[in-house]
Amino acid sequence: MQINELQYRALLREELRAAQALMLKSHSNLPANVTQAFDCIINSGGKRLRPALVLLSAHLCHADLERALPLAAAVEMLHTATLIHDDLIDHALVRRGARTLNAQWPPSATVLAGDLAFAWAATLAARVQDLTMMDRFAATLETICYGELNQMFKGRGVIPTIEEYRQRIFAKTASLFALATEAGPLLAGSPQAEIENLRRFGKLLGMAFQIADDVLDFMGDEATLGKPVGSDLRQGLITLPLLYYLEEHPADQRIQALAQTPPDEAHLQALIADLRSSHVAARAMSTAEGYIHEALDILQPYPPGPYRAALEEIAVFTTRRRY
Amino acid sequence: MQINELQYRALLREELRAAQALMLKSHSNLPANVTQAFDCIINSGGKRLRPALVLLSAHLCHADLERALPLAAAVEMLHTATLIHDDLIDHALVRRGARTLNAQWPPSATVLAGDLAFAWAATLAARVQDLTMMDRFAATLETICYGELNQMFKGRGVIPTIEEYRQRIFAKTASLFALATEAGPLLAGSPQAEIENLRRFGKLLGMAFQIADDVLDFMGDEATLGKPVGSDLRQGLITLPLLYYLEEHPADQRIQALAQTPPDEAHLQALIADLRSSHVAARAMSTAEGYIHEALDILQPYPPGPYRAALEEIAVFTTRRRY
Repeated sequence: MQINELQYRALLREELRAAQALMLKSHSNLPANVTQAFDCIINSGGKRLRPALVLLSAHLCHADLERALPLAAAVEMLHTATLIHDDLIDHALVRRGARTLNAQWPPSATVLAGDLAFAWAATLAARVQDLTMMDRFAATLETICYGELNQMFKGRGVIPTIEEYRQRIFAKTASLFALATEAGPLLAGSPQAEIENLRRFGKLLGMAFQIADDVLDFMGDEATLGKPVGSDLRQGLITLPLLYYLEEHPADQRIQALAQTPPDEAHLQALIADLRSSHVAARAMSTAEGYIHEALDILQPYPPGPYRAALEEIAVFTTRRRY
Repeated sequence: MQINELQYRALLREELRAAQALMLKSHSNLPANVTQAFDCIINSGGKRLRPALVLLSAHLCHADLERALPLAAAVEMLHTATLIHDDLIDHALVRRGARTLNAQWPPSATVLAGDLAFAWAATLAARVQDLTMMDRFAATLETICYGELNQMFKGRGVIPTIEEYRQRIFAKTASLFALATEAGPLLAGSPQAEIENLRRFGKLLGMAFQIADDVLDFMGDEATLGKPVGSDLRQGLITLPLLYYLEEHPADQRIQALAQTPPDEAHLQALIADLRSSHVAARAMSTAEGYIHEALDILQPYPPGPYRAALEEIAVFTTRRRY
């Protein structure tokens, strides 16, 4: 399945374009090369899942689109800001098939560029003109940063429990998905139970999305991924499929070793081959599919229609994607 | 004059303590060494000018203190976040007499710590529960980041005009002072003209404060400053006294050379000695005093009282401080 065949992209084409236009505005005061670099990052796009989730949940709950649009842009800009700093921290040189900012600029400029993207995200979020939304937005940014710092100070060198892994991917990915899908009912003034339900939908989707991402790290291929295979392994990041591998091969010392010191290229390739020929990818994907089934149940009470269908399509796509 | 003799500290003691308590809350989920490092930064304090300005402008305009307090904490936390990233970028090892985060942690952890401080600032700002304030807060963060990026991409290697210098110090310092002093009338629902007047008061104060800072860089002494003398010169940063020096010594090639390549220690010390024995420090301080006179005029229409007196005291202190 190609991303441009996804129904939600067609359904939301104009709105996603409007959200992108909001993201692109206002770099007029910056030097030309900085503006160009930002435009390039914003236009490179990616899947635009997060703004799509904001817009779809808004449609589902009949929220005001005029307020959902700046939030969609804010959520994607926040995601972009975290990627700029993540790529700097991970020394990633390629993202979405293009050179990262840190591959082009000194670290100091990349730090500031990420900060500016955070500032734009906050400005866009403020434009929603909703106090609860602003509060949720700030809390999500806090969760994401907590997660990253915790991972850095506790995570490396230590094998996490499955519960710690879950907390990590909630902070890293699912918290922003949850913000995106609670936005609709929140802006529509829906009952608290509905806000919590759609928040849970986003959380489950985000958890599944991150597990699929962790599997693709060694199962995907570089051309489709737009980034090198084995990036997580090179960083010594212990993800769910590796935890499953360790459960099934308790005598294999390589996972523990990986957590301490990333392996050299030959050992890495051997480990990737062993992971690929094991059942751990399938097992992790089945965990992800469990989340997706639970997420789809949450949509059941909603009357059928294009927006519910698009949310279902995104949910199903999450565990089937190859990039 | 010692900072602890300043009247505003006594007047605001309880409120500044309450603002600090808000800043310290909520690191419970972080590893102990991270919590400790943050507590240490927050407790090291500094002059607390920005939260004091928020609180004084709130008192002056009879704004709700319950909303001014989280904003005071938010403004100081935003300032702290920018310092964490600035020190990383400038490789500064000491601030307020204590080791900076980047002197203790790897760059990646310092980037994330700054991001988390931004997130806390946003959470505190959201707690003010005022949409206009949130908008102004996000816009100020944007101005600060724009200024830093512009400085990095345009500023170094090029001698700025005095107007460019003014724009830079507005973005870097005065924009946050302006936010702090417009907070009072904004939260009090004062007329637009009053909001703009007190915003201008903060801007003038901030401009004067930064000029004094730029002068202290070569006129101050290390023990009182809490950081090395000549830091700006080492970074090749061309500030107002250097622009005045260049005006008065157009044949002296050292300023242009400094902008391109920071000088070695012997040349640096010679330049500092020449700057000290010239009139440029006095001339720059007289520019700063001009701003302060204008700022004091803005306070004239307010009835005399402890809060107006404290604002006047801060204004006068700005150009007399030695640290």
